[in-house]
Amino acid sequence: MTDGRDGRVARGERTRAAVLRRAADIASVEGLDGLSIGRLAADLSVSKAGVFAHFGSKEELQVATVRAAARRFAEEVVAPAAAAPEGLARVVALGERWLDYSRSGVFPGGCFFVSVAAEYDARPGRVRDEIAAARRRWLDHYAAVVAAAQRRGELDPGVDPADLAFELDALGMAANLHARLCDDPSAYDRARAAMRARLRALATAPHPALA
Amino acid sequence: MTDGRDGRVARGERTRAAVLRRAADIASVEGLDGLSIGRLAADLSVSKAGVFAHFGSKEELQVATVRAAARRFAEEVVAPAAAAPEGLARVVALGERWLDYSRSGVFPGGCFFVSVAAEYDARPGRVRDEIAAARRRWLDHYAAVVAAAQRRGELDPGVDPADLAFELDALGMAANLHARLCDDPSAYDRARAAMRARLRALATAPHPALA
Repeated sequence: MTDGRDGRVARGERTRAAVLRRAADIASVEGLDGLSIGRLAADLSVSKAGVFAHFGSKEELQVATVRAAARRFAEEVVAPAAAAPEGLARVVALGERWLDYSRSGVFPGGCFFVSVAAEYDARPGRVRDEIAAARRRWLDHYAAVVAAAQRRGELDPGVDPADLAFELDALGMAANLHARLCDDPSAYDRARAAMRARLRALATAPHPALA
Repeated sequence: MTDGRDGRVARGERTRAAVLRRAADIASVEGLDGLSIGRLAADLSVSKAGVFAHFGSKEELQVATVRAAARRFAEEVVAPAAAAPEGLARVVALGERWLDYSRSGVFPGGCFFVSVAAEYDARPGRVRDEIAAARRRWLDHYAAVVAAAQRRGELDPGVDPADLAFELDALGMAANLHARLCDDPSAYDRARAAMRARLRALATAPHPALA
């Protein structure tokens, strides 16, 4: 049974999640600096005091928004790619889920992290630290997936996993920027073809994931 | 001899150039949306009316700032690379001048165009059109330099020049973002090595520019 207090806690959690979802959507288009507790409260028809109770300050709201966006990214890119078999198939899946994530508009402004990285890279502080930490976690994960493909003997062991992760990720970010700025979704096809060509050149044998 | 009118015109041109230089510096760090005629006038100790006379509106100022940044980019990247011999040497020079341009802080916030592209890609209008046009000109130029290297027989003729330009540019943009966001200038070395490895794989013979 749910007593009054548990009900209030559950409602509070739902409000918090709704605020962060809306905040990440706005920030992907207009930036994290444009977030305002007042606007979020109005958009979601909740009280400003209610939103303020959850975050306390704009910086707190921005940091929580980056964390919530990182969870959404993990659900949309990392988790589906983890369903592919370990090895080269998962490296391919990670790159292609990333392109799908940008192309399909998981965030309305394209990749949340590209948008806010460009906005905050020159503004030291907790918000930038949180964005940088999310980028490092992503590249570390990408490199670990590459290293697993090397351990399975499917990828040239001579390439540095962090270098390859950086290159594959660069193609995704460039596609995200170009497709949106220039209204040219063919950038996604170009990035996908370049990722596959790069992996084909490094594969130790023909692989069905690159067929 | 310079009469009064010519003197005023020359002073006006100097003010206009100074405003646009300062505006591009600010925008590379804080974005184009943060530009204000009042702030620029205060920074440069000129009258608001004087700045307003040159631009008339914030949008006009933003468009002129993108054009001025494109000229600075051409002076810092395209012109020095054009001093390298046509062919593969110029392809290498273009990539390396780009990395130098980002690393050395020609604009204090890193590449001006990466910063403002992320800010404006989801905001249709003249400012976005101007940024997109600058990006297309840059990629077209990069592709033309690649095509010249192919005509000289120095690069595999089977690769699409626009595809290769997109890939090399992607490495530069990723280095720009990573170095600044994560305080990690080794990203420039990583991008440089990846550019060279890519060109080495496509070169028809060993080339001194890739030694």
